[in-house]
Amino acid sequence: MSVRDAATAYVGAFVDELAECGVHRAVISPGSRSTPMAMVLAAHPGIRVWMNVDERSAGFFALGMAKATGEPVALLCTSGTAAANYFPAVAEAHLSRVPLVVLTADRPHELRDVGAPQAMDQLRLYGSHVKWFAEMALPEKEETMLRYARTNAGRAAATAKAGPPGPVHLNFPFREPLVPDLNDSALFSGGKRKGRPSPYVRVAQGEKELPESELAALAAEWSRVERGLIVCGPQTDPELVKPLIRLAEALQFPLLADPLSQLRCGDFDKARVVDGYDAFLRDADAVEKLVPEVVIRFGAMPVSKAFLLYLKAHPDCRQIVVDADEGWRDPTLSASEMLYADPVRFCKGLIRHMKNHRIKGETLWSRRWLQINHRTQEVVRRWGDTRSLSEGGVFLELAGLLPRESLLFAGNSMPVRDLETFFMKGDRPVRTMANRGVNGIDGVVSTALGTAAAGCHTVLVLGDLSFYHDLNGLLAAKMHRIHATIIVINNDGGGIFSFLPQASEAEHFEKLFGTPIGLDFSHAVRMYGGTFDRVGDWDAFRDALRRGENREGLSVIEVVTNRRENASLHRRIWQAVSEAVAEELSKGE
Amino acid sequence: MSVRDAATAYVGAFVDELAECGVHRAVISPGSRSTPMAMVLAAHPGIRVWMNVDERSAGFFALGMAKATGEPVALLCTSGTAAANYFPAVAEAHLSRVPLVVLTADRPHELRDVGAPQAMDQLRLYGSHVKWFAEMALPEKEETMLRYARTNAGRAAATAKAGPPGPVHLNFPFREPLVPDLNDSALFSGGKRKGRPSPYVRVAQGEKELPESELAALAAEWSRVERGLIVCGPQTDPELVKPLIRLAEALQFPLLADPLSQLRCGDFDKARVVDGYDAFLRDADAVEKLVPEVVIRFGAMPVSKAFLLYLKAHPDCRQIVVDADEGWRDPTLSASEMLYADPVRFCKGLIRHMKNHRIKGETLWSRRWLQINHRTQEVVRRWGDTRSLSEGGVFLELAGLLPRESLLFAGNSMPVRDLETFFMKGDRPVRTMANRGVNGIDGVVSTALGTAAAGCHTVLVLGDLSFYHDLNGLLAAKMHRIHATIIVINNDGGGIFSFLPQASEAEHFEKLFGTPIGLDFSHAVRMYGGTFDRVGDWDAFRDALRRGENREGLSVIEVVTNRRENASLHRRIWQAVSEAVAEELSKGE
Repeated sequence: MSVRDAATAYVGAFVDELAECGVHRAVISPGSRSTPMAMVLAAHPGIRVWMNVDERSAGFFALGMAKATGEPVALLCTSGTAAANYFPAVAEAHLSRVPLVVLTADRPHELRDVGAPQAMDQLRLYGSHVKWFAEMALPEKEETMLRYARTNAGRAAATAKAGPPGPVHLNFPFREPLVPDLNDSALFSGGKRKGRPSPYVRVAQGEKELPESELAALAAEWSRVERGLIVCGPQTDPELVKPLIRLAEALQFPLLADPLSQLRCGDFDKARVVDGYDAFLRDADAVEKLVPEVVIRFGAMPVSKAFLLYLKAHPDCRQIVVDADEGWRDPTLSASEMLYADPVRFCKGLIRHMKNHRIKGETLWSRRWLQINHRTQEVVRRWGDTRSLSEGGVFLELAGLLPRESLLFAGNSMPVRDLETFFMKGDRPVRTMANRGVNGIDGVVSTALGTAAAGCHTVLVLGDLSFYHDLNGLLAAKMHRIHATIIVINNDGGGIFSFLPQASEAEHFEKLFGTPIGLDFSHAVRMYGGTFDRVGDWDAFRDALRRGENREGLSVIEVVTNRRENASLHRRIWQAVSEAVAEELSKGE
Repeated sequence: MSVRDAATAYVGAFVDELAECGVHRAVISPGSRSTPMAMVLAAHPGIRVWMNVDERSAGFFALGMAKATGEPVALLCTSGTAAANYFPAVAEAHLSRVPLVVLTADRPHELRDVGAPQAMDQLRLYGSHVKWFAEMALPEKEETMLRYARTNAGRAAATAKAGPPGPVHLNFPFREPLVPDLNDSALFSGGKRKGRPSPYVRVAQGEKELPESELAALAAEWSRVERGLIVCGPQTDPELVKPLIRLAEALQFPLLADPLSQLRCGDFDKARVVDGYDAFLRDADAVEKLVPEVVIRFGAMPVSKAFLLYLKAHPDCRQIVVDADEGWRDPTLSASEMLYADPVRFCKGLIRHMKNHRIKGETLWSRRWLQINHRTQEVVRRWGDTRSLSEGGVFLELAGLLPRESLLFAGNSMPVRDLETFFMKGDRPVRTMANRGVNGIDGVVSTALGTAAAGCHTVLVLGDLSFYHDLNGLLAAKMHRIHATIIVINNDGGGIFSFLPQASEAEHFEKLFGTPIGLDFSHAVRMYGGTFDRVGDWDAFRDALRRGENREGLSVIEVVTNRRENASLHRRIWQAVSEAVAEELSKGE
């Protein structure tokens, strides 16, 4: 039994193998040239299709689904600028290590570079921003070519998932006629061989592990170190949490937890977790007096710029970067060791070897970090207790209000920094996420809605410029009836610039950096079928949040703030933290 | 006298030279890394700056300004995905030959590929889609480097303008501190030398001209041809109109005028202009019986698919493509000669040599084309006279209503095809424009508003999906108080798919291709400070158009139509045209 039409057979084999290899979601933007792939994806029982008209939003929507699930998501668009619109999401996926399988339809070779409509050079369209590019052959239905289609489908999914995960791009030339024969009963059978198990090619990936001798040596060295730190930056693996906690315990090191490390919220022992370092490492005295001997880093570089400057202030410290894969995650240029090893295996191996060494008691070093952190938390809570709405207060409130197992997604620029300061450690399990590959303010709405479409209970907090940038993303909420809450911090412009030296340039500041856009978002939210609440106090905020939780669909809550006041609040907090730090540091002298 | 700070001196010299070389407009998106360039652009008296928060819209906005003026426009954004958002506009500019100078700020070398925030690989970011890429040196203030900055500014502007015009990309690494010293009185003087005229390097571009002997030979050959056609596809040069009209006269050939050829509307003799070929070349008999000997093409490939198929049906015909520059504008793969020569000079040269040959009288061939065209126009007018609103009717109405010297911008997909059919030749001068490089539905709002910002009296007609895709573009109208009228043909989805074979696939059609999004755009238009009129009949349409003309700012007029009815109207017209064609063809037999 074989499929009669070449494009149907070829695309059928490709799509079937994608599904066999774990691609169960596809985000499609409408177009003509992509018709064979679109119709076959829609027809496959193992793949759920989401339509998304704006390819830029579609790219981020797929990114969100892949981020939330860890599974590769397929993206499909027609030829031309459609594919160029994926670029921001592709770049973000590449640096934040999220698996995407980007499928672009293209004109066949004879219609390229000759002025044909909707034709442009799509070969290596995303340059160095994808892990793998393949220009696919034109559809053919002979066995070899169906096996080629299956092999490349499996390879695409496996390459996207393999460490470090990321986007792959397959460009498909299609000739007319474009409509496949979905009534062909053998649609998904092409290229398979009797008796051979599925998938067509199984791909297994080993994990990197350091030799036991090296683990033993590191354990021996580090057991003698007093002034050590473990630092975990943004990472999404829940399995890494407990090994890190246990390693910190074994070494008696403070564990600095980035807001996106998944180490702040959950039912585990957080006694050694330090979450206030971004505030207290702004204090010059703290930086000078807390001299580290060894810093062991996991995950991506932390969000905190204060921490980065702290590392740069101590270039002689041994700084160890542990990375499962490849890459060079050290913008401080002060790392002394890059250890490429699976972090979970690495932690467990070290802990195993630590058993051979005397366990230190609680050190002065460790007590100081934890005590300063405690004082910092007190300051932040005190300032957050003010009655009026504030940007940081949103995260203090959310810490108490978010349901268990929620996903808190933070926009870039100010929100992720306020997440850093105000979303402190707690027992309720909440996942945190942000687009920290390239840190753009673009595509944030779509990424968060993608996580919600993948089944997460998502609350997004983002600024007004970022919300505006991806307003189109809201269409997905309407079309796919996605339940999500979006909190827009509306300070009418780019809040983060108020913290930068540019803020003192009166002449051009508002025009070039403040960029107030003065939009009443209630109109847009209404257009996309969401509910909109502009809240004036915390009671209204809590009410709106609760109502959003209890009804289906999209809820948008707007918190109107002021850029200058926000910068001033942060400065007051840093000042108060400095005073507390001074007290603590003087104790030890 | 010299500038004290290196970045200020270097960027000052660069920006000053851009202005000297004809870049008088810059579109800037807010960001921190781009601060030196943004502030210096804003400070230069010869450059006007438009802020545009969404880089994708910003790119198309700049494209529109450059398309309208023919002058290169600068684009500036910060590092990271911001730059990736320019990609669709860059690709469109490349294929539609529009000069853009894309400036992207970047991290300095030591912060690249090490996990620093908002850092990604920006080298050759747009791949083959720009004419020139340069990775700029870090700012330095010694003379050589200021001359380097001036040289590359001049070279960027000249390269963007040189035939074929297109985008160039310069990537600027900047180190902190980022704020330039705008109070430095020597800000724009760096790198200039006393007594040397401005610009720093003057660039003159020659125009290609065929040898006289070749022109003479072509004139001799073509003067003997009876069944010849001159065809002009999309092009923007008003200077080409009269030479083409005169050449058609000299050769006694019909002149097929694409809706974007600028040959349909204006105060010139249009007796030989054929504007209905897209309708009558759908008739198989017409294609078979109107056998051409020679087709001479100017401009890009015409919008009409019927014309393309007509050429493909006559592969033995001599098809000559005249192109000022390079490229290979022949998707029919049936061109027999590519003549690289300035089209105006080419026409004039031929006409000069034609004087040596006997002038043919009006030929049967020519009479037939013109008579069939006349009958086609009658059919289109008759069907357009129906009382109810229709998509094509919008263009019939506009032909009578647009003020002289207006710019009519058509969205891709259906509107440009309706422009083809329904916007017939007339005496009122109206420029027509569309994004026909890659023919995307993206960025259309911003491109049209860019033309308006550059001083054009712009009326845009586009579909609902295209309007949705670039709703963000409307912010420019609000922020920069742009006067423009936008007519949204709202058939709630992708109208063009109703003409394709996909339309018969009942199961997946609406989901994958129709994609109704059901948006009430009045909300969005209100948010952006425009007026919104949903019109129910032609009187209301005319009223709304008139009111839009008479008030400042953005007016959006929505014409609600039905996709199936639209397809059916077109089919009825083609049927009626076929009947008229049959009559005309039988006359000659």
